[in-house]
Amino acid sequence: MPSLLALGAALAAVPALAAPAGGDALSIVTDLTTDIGQRMAGTPREAAARDWAVARLRALGFANVRVETFPIPGWQRGEEKAAITAPVPQKLAVTALGFSGATPPQGINAELVYFPTLEALKAAPDGSLKGKVAFVDHAFIASQDGAGYGIFGQPRRIGPVVAAQKGAAALLIRSAGTGHMRDPHTGYSTQPKGAPLPSGAVSIPDAELIARLAAKGQPLTVSLTLTPKDVGTLTSGNVIADLPGRDPKLAPILLGCHLDSWDLGTGAIDDGAGCAIITAAALQASQSGQLARGIRVLWAGTEETGGFGGAAYAKAHAGEPLGVVIESDSGADRVYASELTFADADKALAEKIAGELARMGITRGHDRAEGGEDVGFIAAQQKTAVIDLRQDATRYFDWHHTSDDTLDKIDPAQLQQNVDAFVAVLKVLGNYTGVIGAVKPE
Amino acid sequence: MPSLLALGAALAAVPALAAPAGGDALSIVTDLTTDIGQRMAGTPREAAARDWAVARLRALGFANVRVETFPIPGWQRGEEKAAITAPVPQKLAVTALGFSGATPPQGINAELVYFPTLEALKAAPDGSLKGKVAFVDHAFIASQDGAGYGIFGQPRRIGPVVAAQKGAAALLIRSAGTGHMRDPHTGYSTQPKGAPLPSGAVSIPDAELIARLAAKGQPLTVSLTLTPKDVGTLTSGNVIADLPGRDPKLAPILLGCHLDSWDLGTGAIDDGAGCAIITAAALQASQSGQLARGIRVLWAGTEETGGFGGAAYAKAHAGEPLGVVIESDSGADRVYASELTFADADKALAEKIAGELARMGITRGHDRAEGGEDVGFIAAQQKTAVIDLRQDATRYFDWHHTSDDTLDKIDPAQLQQNVDAFVAVLKVLGNYTGVIGAVKPE
Repeated sequence: MPSLLALGAALAAVPALAAPAGGDALSIVTDLTTDIGQRMAGTPREAAARDWAVARLRALGFANVRVETFPIPGWQRGEEKAAITAPVPQKLAVTALGFSGATPPQGINAELVYFPTLEALKAAPDGSLKGKVAFVDHAFIASQDGAGYGIFGQPRRIGPVVAAQKGAAALLIRSAGTGHMRDPHTGYSTQPKGAPLPSGAVSIPDAELIARLAAKGQPLTVSLTLTPKDVGTLTSGNVIADLPGRDPKLAPILLGCHLDSWDLGTGAIDDGAGCAIITAAALQASQSGQLARGIRVLWAGTEETGGFGGAAYAKAHAGEPLGVVIESDSGADRVYASELTFADADKALAEKIAGELARMGITRGHDRAEGGEDVGFIAAQQKTAVIDLRQDATRYFDWHHTSDDTLDKIDPAQLQQNVDAFVAVLKVLGNYTGVIGAVKPE
Repeated sequence: MPSLLALGAALAAVPALAAPAGGDALSIVTDLTTDIGQRMAGTPREAAARDWAVARLRALGFANVRVETFPIPGWQRGEEKAAITAPVPQKLAVTALGFSGATPPQGINAELVYFPTLEALKAAPDGSLKGKVAFVDHAFIASQDGAGYGIFGQPRRIGPVVAAQKGAAALLIRSAGTGHMRDPHTGYSTQPKGAPLPSGAVSIPDAELIARLAAKGQPLTVSLTLTPKDVGTLTSGNVIADLPGRDPKLAPILLGCHLDSWDLGTGAIDDGAGCAIITAAALQASQSGQLARGIRVLWAGTEETGGFGGAAYAKAHAGEPLGVVIESDSGADRVYASELTFADADKALAEKIAGELARMGITRGHDRAEGGEDVGFIAAQQKTAVIDLRQDATRYFDWHHTSDDTLDKIDPAQLQQNVDAFVAVLKVLGNYTGVIGAVKPE
């Protein structure tokens, strides 16, 4: 056994590999949520976040740090309150869905009609809800892969259109989330063209209260005030930064996240964590020397209110060389599986990546990577190889799109595991000097 | 092995022991939180809760179900909002402390001075906070015995008086709680006489944000609007109900809880659960036949805004025979230990109770029972024997006094374990025909 002194001398001989100050993931997401906070797309706070991002990325040594702006539809939250008014007065924690219409300023008071599922609402006759408020329940249960968000997000995504078709005066839904906090979940909704419906989500404890009251069979009435507004066209912007590779002929790796957040929380898990992870990983992968292949980070400007940031990037960068895309946008909990969508010719490369991840306990899924809103547009357009590093989403939908999306929800050890997983992937890709081929469409 | 048919016949021969419909703890707390909801002391909702309680207790077979009213000081919550305004705009989730004073309707915007502890605020020179908002932080960590609420509840209990002495325009505190929801904790506060200070609690994620911003050393400003008001004297009331014993000469057992709740949540864990537990246990203990000793349940009318219900009971029932008191007011999680304060002459009785609880895995503490606000006044006055059944408080202060005090926080299995523990105790006490002696003052 070597003496501690000898071990100390050996350690001292290792070259310093410290990340640039402020370049670790926890620092990035801490500072973004503390010094900026909410940064809804198109608002002055998103602009402040972009300025912050440009300064930080430059300080960390990224090259070609720049902003590419694009127009987006603007929508602004107003007053939000709701209560059961009969058979018993009970306050409801409510928030407007993105792009919700407004009630009159004094609100409405109307019969509430309970639908256990979106399908039940769809089955109601057209016009049958005239003057009433439709309430859509569901049973989203947390799971590691977050699969429930697909089906149980539908009341939010298309409920307003369905409810309007039935003549409803407004729609309330059980939040598309899994947490039992008194904290409703907002999120993008599709609205009837030209006549958005007042549309809100109540917290899950409130939804369960409504379900218990509805089960008694007595008529329910609800008061609802939502006064959001369309604020016309606003400007958003993507922040783009590069770590050039030694060989400029190698098509770069694109790492994506989104800088904008919903307005309720501070965007820690959605998606400050994602930007922190990809940025820290790019730096960490390059710490022991420049990689052969360049890395680009895209902090997309608008994801929450529609995937405008990813779409604008795809349009602006159409036809540019692109080796592979990877996005981080499912929180900060640990990576447990990978999806590797590569051309058949790149099977060996995919296997090498899977092997590195397996050393960390990360399993290989079914090689059906999805990319996401920030890098998915350009990948689809260019048939680029895609890697998903699937994050444990068990807790993610507890806090997603709520005021509870705050820094304290991030577990620093799990955050760093994400960085380490990205680093493992980036070291393989960054040192691979072959051509990464286009993938076949499904 | 007997056939299933034979087993069925054997079961059919057992006398029916089912609790009266609606007499199990989960039904009681479910109906109280669903059909009544918040029931702040002195409000029409507390009156509605009393009517509900009287009807329910009568339906369950209790005798002498009655209300004893008493006057209380009234206070009503108003508008509540707060935000950091410099160096960065950040919304704060805030709620007024009970008996808080009001800001002007348009709010105030003032320098925020950060104090890591109440002791640090106490050390500030008198008058030094003129025109400023004091913020008091602390580090309440959840524990099974909830001990942190003693020390870390102090900023809420006496902070307003200390801050006013220093000249502060308002006080904000880190909520006296442990949960990382964006949900501030209200609670009773002592206020400067005649000049209550605007006093609010911010959620724990917000308190942590303030601490991070304060650590940067830049000046902080905060906007704060709190418009609660003193609403004069109101009427509250205790609901009292009896299960008489076979021998009216035996001094009864008094089981206490409180019916009132804070206005933010629906009073599920504080203290609908307690009323449900004691009531279901009294019924369950009597199911196989009337006990020798009577049981009285006291659903006290005002605990949250001052222990007026327990005090009124002690005054109205001074000198009446009383064998032993037990209260349930720490949520719905499982009982893990007992405290048994009995006269030396009743050592064998205490040991019998401890033995029954040990069979359920419940350990014996240090025989220093405290009683609580609802039964503690009468017990102190009459030197009555006291039993505490200590509930696991690890989660309790996550939700205590917040809008998140809702039914979904109750684990039905743990709730029933509380009932079972009370039943074990009540069976021993209810069948004990000796005199239970007065305890010595400490």
